[in-house]
Amino acid sequence: MSILIAVKGWSPEEWVDAVKSVAPGRAVEAAGAVTDPDAVQYALVWGPERGALARYPNLRAIFSLGAGVDHLTSDPELPDVPVARIVDPDLTMRMTEWVVLQVLLHHRQHLAYARQQAARQWKSLRQAAASEVRVGVMGLGVLGRDAAEALKRLGFQVAGWSRSARDIPGLTTFHGEGGLEAFLAGTDILVVLLPLTDDTRGILDGRLIDSLAKDGPLGGPVLINAGRGKLQVEADIDAALRDGRLKGATLDVFSTEPLPAESPLWSAPNLVITPHVAADSDPIAVSRNVVRQIEAPGRGEPLEGLVDRSRGDWPTRSAVQLGGNLGGRGTWRPW
Amino acid sequence: MSILIAVKGWSPEEWVDAVKSVAPGRAVEAAGAVTDPDAVQYALVWGPERGALARYPNLRAIFSLGAGVDHLTSDPELPDVPVARIVDPDLTMRMTEWVVLQVLLHHRQHLAYARQQAARQWKSLRQAAASEVRVGVMGLGVLGRDAAEALKRLGFQVAGWSRSARDIPGLTTFHGEGGLEAFLAGTDILVVLLPLTDDTRGILDGRLIDSLAKDGPLGGPVLINAGRGKLQVEADIDAALRDGRLKGATLDVFSTEPLPAESPLWSAPNLVITPHVAADSDPIAVSRNVVRQIEAPGRGEPLEGLVDRSRGDWPTRSAVQLGGNLGGRGTWRPW
Repeated sequence: MSILIAVKGWSPEEWVDAVKSVAPGRAVEAAGAVTDPDAVQYALVWGPERGALARYPNLRAIFSLGAGVDHLTSDPELPDVPVARIVDPDLTMRMTEWVVLQVLLHHRQHLAYARQQAARQWKSLRQAAASEVRVGVMGLGVLGRDAAEALKRLGFQVAGWSRSARDIPGLTTFHGEGGLEAFLAGTDILVVLLPLTDDTRGILDGRLIDSLAKDGPLGGPVLINAGRGKLQVEADIDAALRDGRLKGATLDVFSTEPLPAESPLWSAPNLVITPHVAADSDPIAVSRNVVRQIEAPGRGEPLEGLVDRSRGDWPTRSAVQLGGNLGGRGTWRPW
Repeated sequence: MSILIAVKGWSPEEWVDAVKSVAPGRAVEAAGAVTDPDAVQYALVWGPERGALARYPNLRAIFSLGAGVDHLTSDPELPDVPVARIVDPDLTMRMTEWVVLQVLLHHRQHLAYARQQAARQWKSLRQAAASEVRVGVMGLGVLGRDAAEALKRLGFQVAGWSRSARDIPGLTTFHGEGGLEAFLAGTDILVVLLPLTDDTRGILDGRLIDSLAKDGPLGGPVLINAGRGKLQVEADIDAALRDGRLKGATLDVFSTEPLPAESPLWSAPNLVITPHVAADSDPIAVSRNVVRQIEAPGRGEPLEGLVDRSRGDWPTRSAVQLGGNLGGRGTWRPW
């Protein structure tokens, strides 16, 4: 039995070392250095080439080393085995801190103060209270719900939108196409944590931007996206920042990554760019999570974060534990 | 009976209008436009000139429109009447959101990413988890405790230091001169919310900076101060930022405000400057709080946030409610 590491854009050695450190004695091999493809039973992957996983006939499960799984589900040659995304508490906390940072940064007018600092200018700006500001979270999986809760703790008005109806105590929720307009109309800061599906591709366009609240206390709406880059119509976002329909934005993901040096977004006004690091996976924490599942003493437990490929959705932990989202592949048996 | 507004560096008209709007029918006058000094019974003040309040013989109480009160207690001619600071929930939330923003900004390497963005550079930086980072909060009044709690919610290791011992559930606390060294040695990000007293003046100096943890996951310690400017030895902070003993800092307060345009701090590396806006008082919210206390139906209630002038301390709300911190002036009778 061996464990495969197939990561693109990351250091495979770091991941091999991490898994070995938490599972001493296991064979762990990077793609390209596999001695016996038949022995590979588990794969830890990020952005593998199309067909890259079809070479391993005895694969039992695929672990996606991040919350998004479209890099896998878009592969028509993906073996028919369970796919799990790592929804590690560590990853959730990283995403929540990134979201809280970006919401506060725009709310507290950091970019304007930074410009004043560069000009050696001492001037206070009118500051709304958090209780006046309406944050809308699109996508109410584990990540969206945790971010919403942290933002409520800081005093913001928080609402959420998801594709299907969700009843979340203490959170005003909207759902589906029918609820989108009302949700956006009451949102000053939009936080996007959606998966990429046929329904969500390009959803962040000019029409959506124009549906956000215009009369809010920040002087215009703010867009924050750490979902997937292909949710974005980037020309629309760039135009809205330049003509002021968007007061500000933070993007962690882009339709092409790395963002090309010639992209106009690099210099769009009031835009914060982070290079897909909102919830970077920590190799050790993630490896511990994967190995714990592989070595689970009680067999037949469902994999945490199991993906329903037909939806590309980010299930909640509870939905998985209830066994309600098994993608038609039945119960998970680790060995 | 009239209410006096004496504010320096702020717009008196805005405050007159705010108090009038929440207490219609009351006489509200700005300093300099007072028709009958004998009629003045209450004063809402920020940074009045020395002796400015001695002109009103029938003054019954002074409300400080911010958390710091050294602008009052340093006045030897201050009338011998109760002084209360407005510890408004709105003010506490504003301070907490500022503290959380600044902690996350340094933790998540925002300044480095902003430099990369300006250079159109796409590069992820090694990122510690919040659970690896130790935040130390100096000053455990209402503001410090709320900030500490919010930071714990985000996963940071949080400890606190106060002058006298405090037992706060869930928080590791240190106190006094004797506890300072151990507190600093275990602190990666130092958040300062101390009042200015003879004991704390100049406490943020090179010696303190050199006592902070050097081996932390951020690559060096970070200093965040929203207490008072005169806590700082600014030349020491500037030097520590330039030679790397401080990895970063955020200062909201300065020994001279506005910070002079020629100050070297404006361009110190990895320093974020905000112009004393961490917890700017919202005139309407604060006026509502003051008028509620002036018009309290039950007489004999202690003033909220009553100041013990001998300590210049920021009492907790509970200490005031227990009547344990009345500054020797006995019970408060509003009319």
